Amino acid sequence: MAVQVSVIGSGAEHEARAEEVGRLLAERGCTVVCGGRGAKSAGGTTIGIVPGTSRAEANKWIDHVVVTGLGHLRNGVVAATGDAVIAVGGSYGTLTEIGFARIYGRPVVILEPGLDVEGVPRAATPQAAVDFVLASVA
Amino acid sequence: MAVQVSVIGSGAEHEARAEEVGRLLAERGCTVVCGGRGAKSAGGTTIGIVPGTSRAEANKWIDHVVVTGLGHLRNGVVAATGDAVIAVGGSYGTLTEIGFARIYGRPVVILEPGLDVEGVPRAATPQAAVDFVLASVA
Amino acid sequence: MAVQVSVIGSGAEHEARAEEVGRLLAERGCTVVCGGRGAKSAGGTTIGIVPGTSRAEANKWIDHVVVTGLGHLRNGVVAATGDAVIAVGGSYGTLTEIGFARIYGRPVVILEPGLDVEGVPRAATPQAAVDFVLASVA
Amino acid sequence: MAVQVSVIGSGAEHEARAEEVGRLLAERGCTVVCGGRGAKSAGGTTIGIVPGTSRAEANKWIDHVVVTGLGHLRNGVVAATGDAVIAVGGSYGTLTEIGFARIYGRPVVILEPGLDVEGVPRAATPQAAVDFVLASVA
Repeated sequence: MAVQVSVIGSGAEHEARAEEVGRLLAERGCTVVCGGRGAKSAGGTTIGIVPGTSRAEANKWIDHVVVTGLGHLRNGVVAATGDAVIAVGGSYGTLTEIGFARIYGRPVVILEPGLDVEGVPRAATPQAAVDFVLASVA
Repeated sequence: MAVQVSVIGSGAEHEARAEEVGRLLAERGCTVVCGGRGAKSAGGTTIGIVPGTSRAEANKWIDHVVVTGLGHLRNGVVAATGDAVIAVGGSYGTLTEIGFARIYGRPVVILEPGLDVEGVPRAATPQAAVDFVLASVA
Repeated sequence: MAVQVSVIGSGAEHEARAEEVGRLLAERGCTVVCGGRGAKSAGGTTIGIVPGTSRAEANKWIDHVVVTGLGHLRNGVVAATGDAVIAVGGSYGTLTEIGFARIYGRPVVILEPGLDVEGVPRAATPQAAVDFVLASVA
Repeated sequence: MAVQVSVIGSGAEHEARAEEVGRLLAERGCTVVCGGRGAKSAGGTTIGIVPGTSRAEANKWIDHVVVTGLGHLRNGVVAATGDAVIAVGGSYGTLTEIGFARIYGRPVVILEPGLDVEGVPRAATPQAAVDFVLASVA
């Protein structure tokens, strides 16, 4: 099975960096996990974990849609499903995902600029973020 | 995106029939969704949705593992993630999955012999079950 | 702590029987647990476990509101929170609650007329249902 | 219905402050909501929301036990069930609860010393924390 990496966070201003992270993960053979909107992973496989009860909540770049019906609690499923987690931008939802990732023992890295969470390592570039998590799960 | 069909139920005595269902779904290009153990889908893609917090709970035939941390409540995610649901054998857990599938409006069929749930259609063979659900989601 | 009994099911035609069950449970000193609408427990304590993210989803007879944000998956919390479960009427949601109650090992009884679930005992009257579950948890 | 306030966080070194918060909330007529261990609310009502499937996970000060079976995802239920939230100490689990509280629009205050979360107000004393949240929900 491929390594699964969750790319979390949101916000249009972070889209280009999230795409770059997705592209780099695909090149390394990883499956990208996300909340259903935003993680584009050129040439790779993407799993979208959506909050509602309809598959239509995922965007067109998602290969496999996991329909949870959990509302915001699906954040915990996004965190747990990654062998590692990369946070790009984000707000309180991203904070819960980082928290769950740490509770579950998943390696987490925050791409600069991003949330400030005590004890969570940071990476200056998409490449550094990808290198960090792949070294952690090796 | 491929049609996703959840194959639910459990019990060693139903294994051969569940494998047959998985094989037929794979031949039709469907992705098979299951609880993480039991759905073998020869040549196709399989998503396993596991109850705990570790990817290791899925068996070796699973291509993509969704780690929920939800315990038995993951049954609702298994039901919702299928565009349609086929029940093979099973017990009270399967009953909850059938219930959620109906709540969410997913077509459901019970493969004979199987649980007796009022209002849920039944199929005599794996082929008939697969034909039924694919006709429902077409 | 008081014994907690979940009263599940729905439908206006079952309201009078559900109220009778609630009244009898309150007389016996039990706390009544429900999905947030419908369980009236004259003189007793009622806990309502609601699917959305707002306390306003519970009706006025609820003393304590548990706000889950889980959607229909809150059914599993309703089942687990009862030391025992009484089903009055109901449909597929009730089926999931009965299934979870059995998975979790909670005594369950279906009040006649009601769903037909193999292996689950039935009671002819509200009094018989309450007697059954209280004998089971004693 | 009484105002429900969730008291979150953990750690033996914070126990005395959490007890003081619980006592002040009880004096003001509030119901205290917690994760099942730690929130003592002298003379008041306490709801404990536990992660597993057994009522025995709650400690002896809990009046009403909500059994979720959700594992760590029960943190979201603890956050949502409070009309307001007070954080006392804590770690990554508390971080997820603060995140969910903000997502759901619940007023949150962090009692000093405590986690550092951007945008969340802080209170220097238990009394100030209680005053803050009660003013917010009035």
